[in-house]
Amino acid sequence: MNWLERIFDPSYLDLPRFLARPTDTGEDVSATVARILREVRDRGDEALFEYGRKFDGVSLARLGVSGEELANAGTLLPAALRQAIARARDNIRRFHEAQKPNDEHIETEPGIFCWRKSVPIEQVGIYVPGGSAPLFSTVLMLAVPATIAGCSRIILCTPPQSDGTIHPAILHAAYISGVTEVFAVGGAQAIGAMAWGTESIPKVDKIFGPGNRFVTEAKIQVSGSACAIDMPAGPSEVMVVIDHAADPAFAAADLLSQAEHGPDSQAILVVIADDLHAGDLLVDAVEHHLDNQLSRLGRRHLAVRSLGHSKAVIVTKPEQAVMVINSYGPEHLLLQSATAEVLAGYVRNAGSVFIGPWSCESAGDYASGTNHTLPTNGWARAYGGVSLDSYFKKITFQRLERKALCSLGPDIRIMAEAESLDAHAEAVRIRLSRNCEVST
Amino acid sequence: MNWLERIFDPSYLDLPRFLARPTDTGEDVSATVARILREVRDRGDEALFEYGRKFDGVSLARLGVSGEELANAGTLLPAALRQAIARARDNIRRFHEAQKPNDEHIETEPGIFCWRKSVPIEQVGIYVPGGSAPLFSTVLMLAVPATIAGCSRIILCTPPQSDGTIHPAILHAAYISGVTEVFAVGGAQAIGAMAWGTESIPKVDKIFGPGNRFVTEAKIQVSGSACAIDMPAGPSEVMVVIDHAADPAFAAADLLSQAEHGPDSQAILVVIADDLHAGDLLVDAVEHHLDNQLSRLGRRHLAVRSLGHSKAVIVTKPEQAVMVINSYGPEHLLLQSATAEVLAGYVRNAGSVFIGPWSCESAGDYASGTNHTLPTNGWARAYGGVSLDSYFKKITFQRLERKALCSLGPDIRIMAEAESLDAHAEAVRIRLSRNCEVST
Repeated sequence: MNWLERIFDPSYLDLPRFLARPTDTGEDVSATVARILREVRDRGDEALFEYGRKFDGVSLARLGVSGEELANAGTLLPAALRQAIARARDNIRRFHEAQKPNDEHIETEPGIFCWRKSVPIEQVGIYVPGGSAPLFSTVLMLAVPATIAGCSRIILCTPPQSDGTIHPAILHAAYISGVTEVFAVGGAQAIGAMAWGTESIPKVDKIFGPGNRFVTEAKIQVSGSACAIDMPAGPSEVMVVIDHAADPAFAAADLLSQAEHGPDSQAILVVIADDLHAGDLLVDAVEHHLDNQLSRLGRRHLAVRSLGHSKAVIVTKPEQAVMVINSYGPEHLLLQSATAEVLAGYVRNAGSVFIGPWSCESAGDYASGTNHTLPTNGWARAYGGVSLDSYFKKITFQRLERKALCSLGPDIRIMAEAESLDAHAEAVRIRLSRNCEVST
Repeated sequence: MNWLERIFDPSYLDLPRFLARPTDTGEDVSATVARILREVRDRGDEALFEYGRKFDGVSLARLGVSGEELANAGTLLPAALRQAIARARDNIRRFHEAQKPNDEHIETEPGIFCWRKSVPIEQVGIYVPGGSAPLFSTVLMLAVPATIAGCSRIILCTPPQSDGTIHPAILHAAYISGVTEVFAVGGAQAIGAMAWGTESIPKVDKIFGPGNRFVTEAKIQVSGSACAIDMPAGPSEVMVVIDHAADPAFAAADLLSQAEHGPDSQAILVVIADDLHAGDLLVDAVEHHLDNQLSRLGRRHLAVRSLGHSKAVIVTKPEQAVMVINSYGPEHLLLQSATAEVLAGYVRNAGSVFIGPWSCESAGDYASGTNHTLPTNGWARAYGGVSLDSYFKKITFQRLERKALCSLGPDIRIMAEAESLDAHAEAVRIRLSRNCEVST
């Protein structure tokens, strides 16, 4: 079946139109979210309990999970899953530990010492969406670096299941990656709770994590006034670049592992071929495997809807593929062509790049060690994914010796006066007047 | 005169109330800003010319400044100012060049290679407010690191003066720090122009720079959907920590160099004294100098209004001062007590820290090398100031060898299946089935 709309040899100027992200056709959520946030800010826990009944269909006795429940959750999981989670945690830890900052100390002029110090953000909040399956991998991705950074409080909010509990895989992942408190609260109300704090839930300094449109809108709304956020998130996306050397079955599997996320997800195939006809045949080959693999898929209905706005772009030169990549700025970029290593060197806009046939997206999604919280919707132009840096702020320090101010001071005064900031000039003048042999 | 409201020995829980930032009592600007942004997005240059007539009172022939005008602006400045600007530029360059990232390459498991690469954000936009004086120092602070990072396009928007031109100090600072294009557009409309692009002004990936409430609101509004921003900015603030060893005239000068920024600015004095009475006398001494210095100040009327909500906090132990500092999270923190170096080690929340009597805020505002674009309004809990990092995004890369996927693959499958993501599991299974000796 022809799953992918084919675009042959597009010009640079046409690309943004051809590869436009699916636009959000749903109702405007901003007013709804603003109302929920206001309720939570003003009424605290009471509002959270109400929303729990309304949206999650559960009447909770309390919002927090006990330390005992957290510590024991692992015993409810199959040993193989527990081991897999521990291995993923260890790889994520290794990759993020290597990101520890080196704070530079320099002397910009004799006697002017300037440096930065990386200080962990004290209180961080992690949001993990609910839904049909427990997204414990997101817990690992967001809590492990927080622990390495040394954040003193790492809380997690996630919607309760229909019986009011939280899935043990989420609790166990939280427990082994250093989360300090877990709350059974979901949706925009969870974001409001972490941004302002309630009786049960502490206010945090920064909120991390993915979510649906309500959660994303809530994060954006609080980010202007109350609380920092990791990044504005959107539906997930992948771009897979292949040529004759690639295995079309692998490419099909990778497109589907994006498409199954949901109907908003976007999967783009880029084919580099000797000529457009050869490229067309390669797309045929991938589509043949899409047919085969789709039939085995539990979330087939979601994947089919997502494929409805997926595309195949056929080009004849590697540099055109580079243009397509950087114009689109994919969250995940899979390079499976013979030229993969070379192409990787030219990537300017992408969240995470997977090089070669054995680097499937699932590896990075779960266990290779890289973070899976990545910029979507073209945000890769400006943002990197979550990393250890996301949990630090860097404070600058400076210490000037007396002689250094005597030397630099007159130039500071000239500039302050040129900006009509007299008191700035005066703060220098008064120091110079007492202590330096310069005219004041 | 009693300029500063005195707070004696406050408890930790009372601090947030005592040191609350002046709340914004102006009208709600969000609807106005949303309308301006919509106009600019929909009508481009036409709307910019209209707003130029309406808000800046000038009819411009074109929005851009010619390359010749940019290159020649320096000839219109006094030589001493030109030299001071060059010296500041060089120090800023030295401090930010030291921040160049070291991208780590690691092998998380045998055959799993993961690394990050710092890639400059391609297009950045700088906003410089207008007003009574040309804020050329902000140009240096925002353009110098962009040039070091290697951003390919660095544009600058600033409101025109009443004669339609831009002050030569701004143009010259732009020219010598690598700005590629300058436009005479100010206000929320400039933010919209850079976020979406117009016929004259290119769309950028990230917007930097301070501004009034309209500009800040515009930055927040575009940051959710169109364009990244440096940080949500607010009125400037300083906290000055002194004890018996400090020179009260210096402290007064530093408080005033904050207060002169405008009526929203906040200046907080923290006094560490042997007892509360001694602390009271120290505040008296500072106020005596405030009286003296105010009389010499051009922007006296602004400083007086700002002092109206300034405070003095008197404590008797250094650890209480630490509590006050970290509770407030000042943009600028000046440590002028005998314990300055020790206190500096305990700072968790601050934008930039100035240690010792010769490290006046003006030094960092202009010329020592550190950046003066810093988190205000308590954002220091989550954000650092603008730094070289602000102009990069870090892209992650990974390459798995076949044997590595054969080893890790089964654990990825277990986790993907536990998250009900069949296609994620399948992308691994299909690879394992062909190439590894494991059961599939």
